[in-house]
Amino acid sequence: MADEKKLTTRAADFSAWYNELVLRAELADYSPVRGCMVIRPNGYGIWERMQRALDDMFKATGHVNAYFPMFIPESFLSKEAEHVEGFAPETAVVTHGGGKKLEEPLVVRPTSETIIYSMFAKWVQSYRDLPLLYNQWANVVRWEMRTRLFLRTMEFLWQEGHTAHATHDEAEEEARKMLGVYRDFMEGWIAMPVITGQKTESEKFAGALRTYACEAMMQDGKALQAGTSHNLGQNFAKAFDLTFQSEAGTIEHAWNTSWGVSTRMVGGLVMTHGDDNGLITPPLLAPIELVIVPIWRTDEEKATVFEAARNLKQSLGAWERRAPARLRVHLDDREGIKPGAKYYHWETRGIPLRLELGPRDVAANQCVLVRRDTRAKQVASLDTIGEDVAELLMRMQADLLTAARERMDARTHRGVTSYDQFREIMDAGGFVYAGWNGDPASEARVKEETKATIRVIPDPEFRSAEAPTRCLVTGEPAKHEVLWARAY
Amino acid sequence: MADEKKLTTRAADFSAWYNELVLRAELADYSPVRGCMVIRPNGYGIWERMQRALDDMFKATGHVNAYFPMFIPESFLSKEAEHVEGFAPETAVVTHGGGKKLEEPLVVRPTSETIIYSMFAKWVQSYRDLPLLYNQWANVVRWEMRTRLFLRTMEFLWQEGHTAHATHDEAEEEARKMLGVYRDFMEGWIAMPVITGQKTESEKFAGALRTYACEAMMQDGKALQAGTSHNLGQNFAKAFDLTFQSEAGTIEHAWNTSWGVSTRMVGGLVMTHGDDNGLITPPLLAPIELVIVPIWRTDEEKATVFEAARNLKQSLGAWERRAPARLRVHLDDREGIKPGAKYYHWETRGIPLRLELGPRDVAANQCVLVRRDTRAKQVASLDTIGEDVAELLMRMQADLLTAARERMDARTHRGVTSYDQFREIMDAGGFVYAGWNGDPASEARVKEETKATIRVIPDPEFRSAEAPTRCLVTGEPAKHEVLWARAY
Repeated sequence: MADEKKLTTRAADFSAWYNELVLRAELADYSPVRGCMVIRPNGYGIWERMQRALDDMFKATGHVNAYFPMFIPESFLSKEAEHVEGFAPETAVVTHGGGKKLEEPLVVRPTSETIIYSMFAKWVQSYRDLPLLYNQWANVVRWEMRTRLFLRTMEFLWQEGHTAHATHDEAEEEARKMLGVYRDFMEGWIAMPVITGQKTESEKFAGALRTYACEAMMQDGKALQAGTSHNLGQNFAKAFDLTFQSEAGTIEHAWNTSWGVSTRMVGGLVMTHGDDNGLITPPLLAPIELVIVPIWRTDEEKATVFEAARNLKQSLGAWERRAPARLRVHLDDREGIKPGAKYYHWETRGIPLRLELGPRDVAANQCVLVRRDTRAKQVASLDTIGEDVAELLMRMQADLLTAARERMDARTHRGVTSYDQFREIMDAGGFVYAGWNGDPASEARVKEETKATIRVIPDPEFRSAEAPTRCLVTGEPAKHEVLWARAY
Repeated sequence: MADEKKLTTRAADFSAWYNELVLRAELADYSPVRGCMVIRPNGYGIWERMQRALDDMFKATGHVNAYFPMFIPESFLSKEAEHVEGFAPETAVVTHGGGKKLEEPLVVRPTSETIIYSMFAKWVQSYRDLPLLYNQWANVVRWEMRTRLFLRTMEFLWQEGHTAHATHDEAEEEARKMLGVYRDFMEGWIAMPVITGQKTESEKFAGALRTYACEAMMQDGKALQAGTSHNLGQNFAKAFDLTFQSEAGTIEHAWNTSWGVSTRMVGGLVMTHGDDNGLITPPLLAPIELVIVPIWRTDEEKATVFEAARNLKQSLGAWERRAPARLRVHLDDREGIKPGAKYYHWETRGIPLRLELGPRDVAANQCVLVRRDTRAKQVASLDTIGEDVAELLMRMQADLLTAARERMDARTHRGVTSYDQFREIMDAGGFVYAGWNGDPASEARVKEETKATIRVIPDPEFRSAEAPTRCLVTGEPAKHEVLWARAY
């Protein structure tokens, strides 16, 4: 089977490894439309679990879901000057509908600030109507020339939060709060450690006052911007007349935030945990957590093993970890395929645990459990299998985060003061914390010369114990400590 | 408050009542883009619960979710002759992307048969790869000139199931099975009785072999097509080279089905249950099932009542009906708004149950429960309030279905043999079961003269005990008993 050809290794060609893995694990496929991808059930199952977890977190922080039109009148984009400059060049434009040319072309949303704040303006009269805490799950389109499955596609799925507040401080608190929710999700669910911080002026969202981001390190040492949260200030409120009567009776413009994460996170999951055998899915996001592989030679053995395997699937599938989360178990009862081929199949697809069950196991009331990440095997009694599996999954979830954090730390460099040394690190792949004079010109020069960008001005907890005093590029006094990396 | 103006009554103007209700209950709003709607949190909350219930039912019947591109090359639509004829006139077309004119225009999906079966063709080689049982939650666009909130909008949200099978009979079984799932959902969750059956040639899906549908009766006696399921035969498989090697070694075309329901069902819910005071939401689909309204005059009373109300919200909110479904409870603790205004507010929005709690209630360890549908009040002890509320909600769910069924039966006519009488019934609003000679010409004549259409050739259980022998229109021998109605 073509399927059994070895993956290109990460060391040999990280980019080829990624593409092959995504196709081989059937996470996604290329589509007949250039730049658009098909998200296959294995990939969509991970996205669904991401959605469910995030949606619960959004609701727990007081947000409600709504849905706004995908088409935006072209004139709307232009109402916020920076916004149109940032997004107009990458839009898809509908010029014909129902067989006729449209009077005003419609843009397929690249993001929904303009349409949403135009509606907020209709709904908000008084400070009593605030805050509005909205979220939308939707598809968006940004015309990209160079696309990569999950990481950069013309159409992608995401959520976009949009809120309106009475004061700057409330909006700021919201933008920071949602950045925290993203970080909790990325570390707790994707087991992907992130650095949080503020984007520089040149990297911030088109139309925002301030942009905050979560940056993760992939196994090749490059950064992935995994989520962003923006304090939009009053820019969109002014463009769309989003005003309210304050408690004091004055008319004020509202303060907005927006924040989003997308199917790009699936790519981040792959590049954080995958190994040369294929995908490794953190248990909390795995559509299947455990696959049972029965092993037999004779018909008699088959009957015994299958009965035990089916009973095990049923009892494990009903085993309640903590309500309402039941174990997600699959029994691979295909015939005519050898156990080894089944191991390979499920390894490629990243299923966290494999349970091997042969006739001698059944006789001994036991089975073999194999972890996908460490490939460690252990014999487990069938009497305590529910507890054992649940514990192993929890441990694996925690271990994946620890391992990813250790990889990131190993490629993170502080105290770099030589620009040459910096360039070497960027060529090899890694994060560098260094001083910056705050000048967009020095930022642009580094990007030009090394393809590295300032990922964020890190939040205090990520900063170096001893703050760098000099700008890495110019040697001038440093205004900020910043995180440099090449990025996806 | 403008909000307190009475709704137009259903009797006075059903259509105006519907539009006012949808806006007043904040289910949806008009958008700046002609024909597109904004689904507001109250409406989206109902849609989310619909999605969750249906998604569970799809998964329980073996389906998996995936996502396919929203853009379809124009040439794809044309590959199935009937399909392009049906859909091309109502498409939105992207002609420009990234600032350039496209070589081939892209159509925004009106439905996804073409793009999905082109991918299936890539994935299916052998009979072992079949069946494929896919579902997609997505937005679609059909260029409509006359739109109505939820019922007919240019962009709408839906799910579309797409499957591939080795034989005609398996596809037929799947199409019928999913029609059954839809019926179970519509009756069990929306409490909306439906008639199932097969569409005539002139009403079937463009490109299908056979179309099955669920038809519901709205309170004005008009029909709403609430869901459809198609046996597509081999039409799309032939157009997209979707072939497989059979067990016997021959190359065969696969058999497909597709089936869909949309946000239109929210409109169906409104027109099935709403009354002159506003929305009535079946408890299973209500984002909030119970609203607590504290009643007080003095500060002392307020302290007592609020403490009791908050305790009640917490204990009811944690009360497990059957895991994992907790009661969905809201405490309306707004100040400066009288209880009567709060009652009105929540009635309009269709919350199934209201719990009134005043100081004397607290002293007596009791409260008053008011049903939204019957407006019946009952005093309930706080000791057994969880059980009482859960039981009342279940009873209300069942009563709503019974009431809707009685309304439908009352306006359903059988044994009609006079065309004049038929026309009177159509003018008044209602369903007519009658004989039809099977000729598209007589069907077209009735549509022309009365605006009524054949909704379905009903499934056996809905047919009259005594089958009509003559065609209602021509007096010729009847070939089928059919269901006639005007429709949304």
